[in-house]
Amino acid sequence: MRVALIGLGRMGRVHARNLAGRCRSAELAAVADADAGMAEAAGAEFDVPWTTDSGALLDDPTVDAVAVATPTAAHADLVVRAARAGKHVFCEKPIALDRPATVRAVEAVAATGVRFQIGFHRRHDPDWVAATRRIHAGEMGEPYLFRTSLRDMKPPPVEFLAGSGGFFVDMTIHDLDTARWMVGEVVEVAAYGTALADPAIGEIGDLDTALVVLRFESGALGVIDNSRAAGYGYECSTEVMGRSATVRIDRPQHRHYQWLTPDGATYGINRDFEERYPLAYAEEMEAFARCVRDGTEPAVTGLDALAAFDLATAADLAWRTGRAVPVVPERRDGGVVYSFAGQA
Amino acid sequence: MRVALIGLGRMGRVHARNLAGRCRSAELAAVADADAGMAEAAGAEFDVPWTTDSGALLDDPTVDAVAVATPTAAHADLVVRAARAGKHVFCEKPIALDRPATVRAVEAVAATGVRFQIGFHRRHDPDWVAATRRIHAGEMGEPYLFRTSLRDMKPPPVEFLAGSGGFFVDMTIHDLDTARWMVGEVVEVAAYGTALADPAIGEIGDLDTALVVLRFESGALGVIDNSRAAGYGYECSTEVMGRSATVRIDRPQHRHYQWLTPDGATYGINRDFEERYPLAYAEEMEAFARCVRDGTEPAVTGLDALAAFDLATAADLAWRTGRAVPVVPERRDGGVVYSFAGQA
Amino acid sequence: MRVALIGLGRMGRVHARNLAGRCRSAELAAVADADAGMAEAAGAEFDVPWTTDSGALLDDPTVDAVAVATPTAAHADLVVRAARAGKHVFCEKPIALDRPATVRAVEAVAATGVRFQIGFHRRHDPDWVAATRRIHAGEMGEPYLFRTSLRDMKPPPVEFLAGSGGFFVDMTIHDLDTARWMVGEVVEVAAYGTALADPAIGEIGDLDTALVVLRFESGALGVIDNSRAAGYGYECSTEVMGRSATVRIDRPQHRHYQWLTPDGATYGINRDFEERYPLAYAEEMEAFARCVRDGTEPAVTGLDALAAFDLATAADLAWRTGRAVPVVPERRDGGVVYSFAGQA
Amino acid sequence: MRVALIGLGRMGRVHARNLAGRCRSAELAAVADADAGMAEAAGAEFDVPWTTDSGALLDDPTVDAVAVATPTAAHADLVVRAARAGKHVFCEKPIALDRPATVRAVEAVAATGVRFQIGFHRRHDPDWVAATRRIHAGEMGEPYLFRTSLRDMKPPPVEFLAGSGGFFVDMTIHDLDTARWMVGEVVEVAAYGTALADPAIGEIGDLDTALVVLRFESGALGVIDNSRAAGYGYECSTEVMGRSATVRIDRPQHRHYQWLTPDGATYGINRDFEERYPLAYAEEMEAFARCVRDGTEPAVTGLDALAAFDLATAADLAWRTGRAVPVVPERRDGGVVYSFAGQA
Repeated sequence: MRVALIGLGRMGRVHARNLAGRCRSAELAAVADADAGMAEAAGAEFDVPWTTDSGALLDDPTVDAVAVATPTAAHADLVVRAARAGKHVFCEKPIALDRPATVRAVEAVAATGVRFQIGFHRRHDPDWVAATRRIHAGEMGEPYLFRTSLRDMKPPPVEFLAGSGGFFVDMTIHDLDTARWMVGEVVEVAAYGTALADPAIGEIGDLDTALVVLRFESGALGVIDNSRAAGYGYECSTEVMGRSATVRIDRPQHRHYQWLTPDGATYGINRDFEERYPLAYAEEMEAFARCVRDGTEPAVTGLDALAAFDLATAADLAWRTGRAVPVVPERRDGGVVYSFAGQA
Repeated sequence: MRVALIGLGRMGRVHARNLAGRCRSAELAAVADADAGMAEAAGAEFDVPWTTDSGALLDDPTVDAVAVATPTAAHADLVVRAARAGKHVFCEKPIALDRPATVRAVEAVAATGVRFQIGFHRRHDPDWVAATRRIHAGEMGEPYLFRTSLRDMKPPPVEFLAGSGGFFVDMTIHDLDTARWMVGEVVEVAAYGTALADPAIGEIGDLDTALVVLRFESGALGVIDNSRAAGYGYECSTEVMGRSATVRIDRPQHRHYQWLTPDGATYGINRDFEERYPLAYAEEMEAFARCVRDGTEPAVTGLDALAAFDLATAADLAWRTGRAVPVVPERRDGGVVYSFAGQA
Repeated sequence: MRVALIGLGRMGRVHARNLAGRCRSAELAAVADADAGMAEAAGAEFDVPWTTDSGALLDDPTVDAVAVATPTAAHADLVVRAARAGKHVFCEKPIALDRPATVRAVEAVAATGVRFQIGFHRRHDPDWVAATRRIHAGEMGEPYLFRTSLRDMKPPPVEFLAGSGGFFVDMTIHDLDTARWMVGEVVEVAAYGTALADPAIGEIGDLDTALVVLRFESGALGVIDNSRAAGYGYECSTEVMGRSATVRIDRPQHRHYQWLTPDGATYGINRDFEERYPLAYAEEMEAFARCVRDGTEPAVTGLDALAAFDLATAADLAWRTGRAVPVVPERRDGGVVYSFAGQA
Repeated sequence: MRVALIGLGRMGRVHARNLAGRCRSAELAAVADADAGMAEAAGAEFDVPWTTDSGALLDDPTVDAVAVATPTAAHADLVVRAARAGKHVFCEKPIALDRPATVRAVEAVAATGVRFQIGFHRRHDPDWVAATRRIHAGEMGEPYLFRTSLRDMKPPPVEFLAGSGGFFVDMTIHDLDTARWMVGEVVEVAAYGTALADPAIGEIGDLDTALVVLRFESGALGVIDNSRAAGYGYECSTEVMGRSATVRIDRPQHRHYQWLTPDGATYGINRDFEERYPLAYAEEMEAFARCVRDGTEPAVTGLDALAAFDLATAADLAWRTGRAVPVVPERRDGGVVYSFAGQA
């Protein structure tokens, strides 16, 4: 599968490296970025054609699939155009910053019949997959508590945040997808936030740290904590407690050695998602290629992206109103669609 | 310091063992329990006089202090009578099952001038003390996220629960005291609960698992998770995240060896609070004896018990109404007193 | 059981604290030390009579047992006199600095019929006891590799070392006892040493770091590493590998919290044996009291002390000659006695 | 760099996967194996030409380099022929089963001027590289104790062992290279072995478990423990203790989650070198490609292979004679060559 990659920011370069060097079932066909310098540099580095005109790639008959890693604002349009050009589509989360655009993109892609996979990478990380498989196999009985942390070491620039869709849509969305995957559908969302770590974030009306409480359809409870400023490093860990067992997923270290001095034993902590997830991003691209090859449905679809987006906006509403937001999951189109009072 | 112990249930026996064998500054003077068999057995085991009439101990001039570990319903009356008899008082939490009785007891004891210490044992555990000291010394900067878990392995009998004051007053109260101690006063409490683990608990209108979200005066957020049915063991762990450091307190194991087989490496987990806290209960009794000897104020007073009780009832109200409850901490009488709309 | 404690150095004070405050079946009767200031201070601290004349304690009819924690040179004489005075005897290792004195003491005590227990504290530590019980119960099958580390953070003063009996008799002796206890008798000892950490130690012909290789009767191999200068802290950990399982005993931390900063996650390491073994020393004294009360044989006897001493001197010989030393364990007198060519 | 791979056993397939899918600077050009079925299958899997005639690949002008992963007996001849054909050579350890063949191969390759790298993969694993860099930078001061474990879960078939060169040459050789790399040259080797785990191994005069003691030129001590039958899993861990710090390298887990039940917390342990070293084998091939590209010397050369081989045979001699073997490291030809009495 030959993949054209659009967008060469940080995630884009992760995908470029994986497509160029680590995926056996996919290869990098070309790269595009609005910034000619970045496009040219990546073209040289990975020895593929480059362009600033992403549209050209959509017309290229040697391209089988498109991976979209641009800023979010450009996602939906590219996704739809690529699908209509007959290309299979991989897209970073979220699909768009608003619901109508998200829905339109999901529906437009569905109409074309191409494969459409969203970049929720934990769904492809070996640790998470192994643990979740045991939960789904019933090894812990019915889960009744879900707890997860996603934290960045340092906040991104305020300019990035201003166009990010807000804390919940940009960050919590990962944990909301994980919650649905591991435990099931949600019926209530509450949210609490603060901007203590970085006052500049508070000034633009955004948060740097938040708690989101979930009530699942099963009656289980969940709590997500997120921070853009954990300070000590990058954290992505989860616990699910069930009747007969509890699982904890954690991989705090990047390097596996301890340095012992009279001050104690110290091990280095992951500093970012690349250190935390050495395999997940390559594996998600491999999985995408296998779905394309085999004509199977990706593990995480456009409808999953919409569901996580809706839960994120419910969290945002809950935070703004200070009240828990009941949400209604409805099975349809082979997925689940959420609705709630006050939904955009 | 000669201590008469009243109440020989599980916590009572913990205190008896510590007073008899581990505390250098205090000794067990006598034991009392309404159950003559238990009283006699403990008397024989610890080689001290026993009685079923706790009042007799209050009149005994050789007794310096009284430790109250009866069922909660009897706490307040014993506390007040002991204080009026001039005995220093150690009392298990909570002081009473309702606020007026709690307030009356706190005020009555204060009027006598005796030392009054509450059994929030974490305040005396070496791990918690060391970590909290570093927080208070400013080593992590201003905390902005507090997270704590307190979980029992298996639920107590439903009959016990029926007289326990409910989930928040019986269980969460420990974490609420910890939150105030480590991070500071609280201005909002929200709570979410479920009774999935044990249907019998749900039938009496109580919970087995809950999440409590706190907003601190400083703007920091906190989340407490509690369960009466963790299944795998007893858990009591905490994380506090600040600008320049994060601390994690955890002591999952009772025995320090790993057993490795082809199925993996296994270590035993704590099964109850006695395994988790090998030193804290002895240390709290020592600390109490030192306060009596030196005429200093205990680290955790009747007003602290009242504050934790008030936050627990605010959590109960939040859970029952499905809304966050704003609470108002007011400095007075050398402590902090909480009020909130709907307070009993 | 009333215990008179002779010797108030570091180990002596550990025993004093335990006898005074933590042992239920034993109590501190009196203390003695050649240094009047130390004796008086301990007498005041523990509220017991003190003396500089240890002989007086041996005549005291209210004393049931004697704990000997003086410098090694004085052990044997005190042990024998105490036993002949009808006192049960607890003695720190080693019994003496040479074999004839050790043998004489063991035989003299045996002739009196008093209880005689040696201070190999691991035999009473809950972690080691639990792990060893599983080995002896056959849960790992036949062990075939034994590995253990005992390391001090910093070397003692050279003056202490000069009278210590040498590296193997002073330090390795603990691991040799552990090897016999966990795996069984030994048939060959080899030893390798260096004095890199502290040149002053090399100048007196002693070692600061050594490796001892054991061949057990069963065919299993063992390796002990010891250092007087681990630098980072105190270490005492062990691994035993068997056909169907492997066990690792380790308790690196004193306080159970981690402090996370951008430099990594740090936990404090034990700095000395008191931090590493919060319970073992109290438990060994309890066990001694139980043996006296019940008339049973201590878990670690004078013959065990002699066996460990003999293996330590075999290690010393192996190190000095650069050759493995075959040793012959012979069952007799309810114990095992070692002999080897070149034995003193 | 186009690499022809000769030998498609387990290590060969690891290299094939890495060359085909994970190395950016090298690609798989062709595969050869004496077994036509295996060669054909690998050719199909990796979409490259295959052959049973490895000689044909040496003549192929489009091949830049050859990776030799055949049984050891065929290494030396292939290495020399490849080098003489102008191909750069990567070869699994050991180069040969006897010293003369090893020396001849090293010298023959040196005469051609091609790059020659040996498959000591730890030299390229990120954990080991990072830790060793800190040692070499002087962060721990002078090391004085080195300890390492290499253990397989289960023994290979006895037929493999019969042609393996023996325990020390086949297995310990890895740790001997690590010892030289991390701490420096060796002046004495002692060895102790047993065949308790698998009697069939003892019957062919080989070992399944061994201890090797090293004395380094610096005066430091080292101990290696190796087993072919650890039972619980694959282990490869190391500790180096220095004056001011100690480092421990360990990566026991393959998946990063814990499963908690009333029986304790269990995590899965690595079962083999592929689980233990997810990155090292790809990285060593990358490093080889970079050396070829840049004309630099590989981190681990033919002389390093000879040095480790010589130390392994010294260990074998030490084990057979029961005496420590003094060895003499001599700097020459840009490397170190060892000699000792009794050397083959």
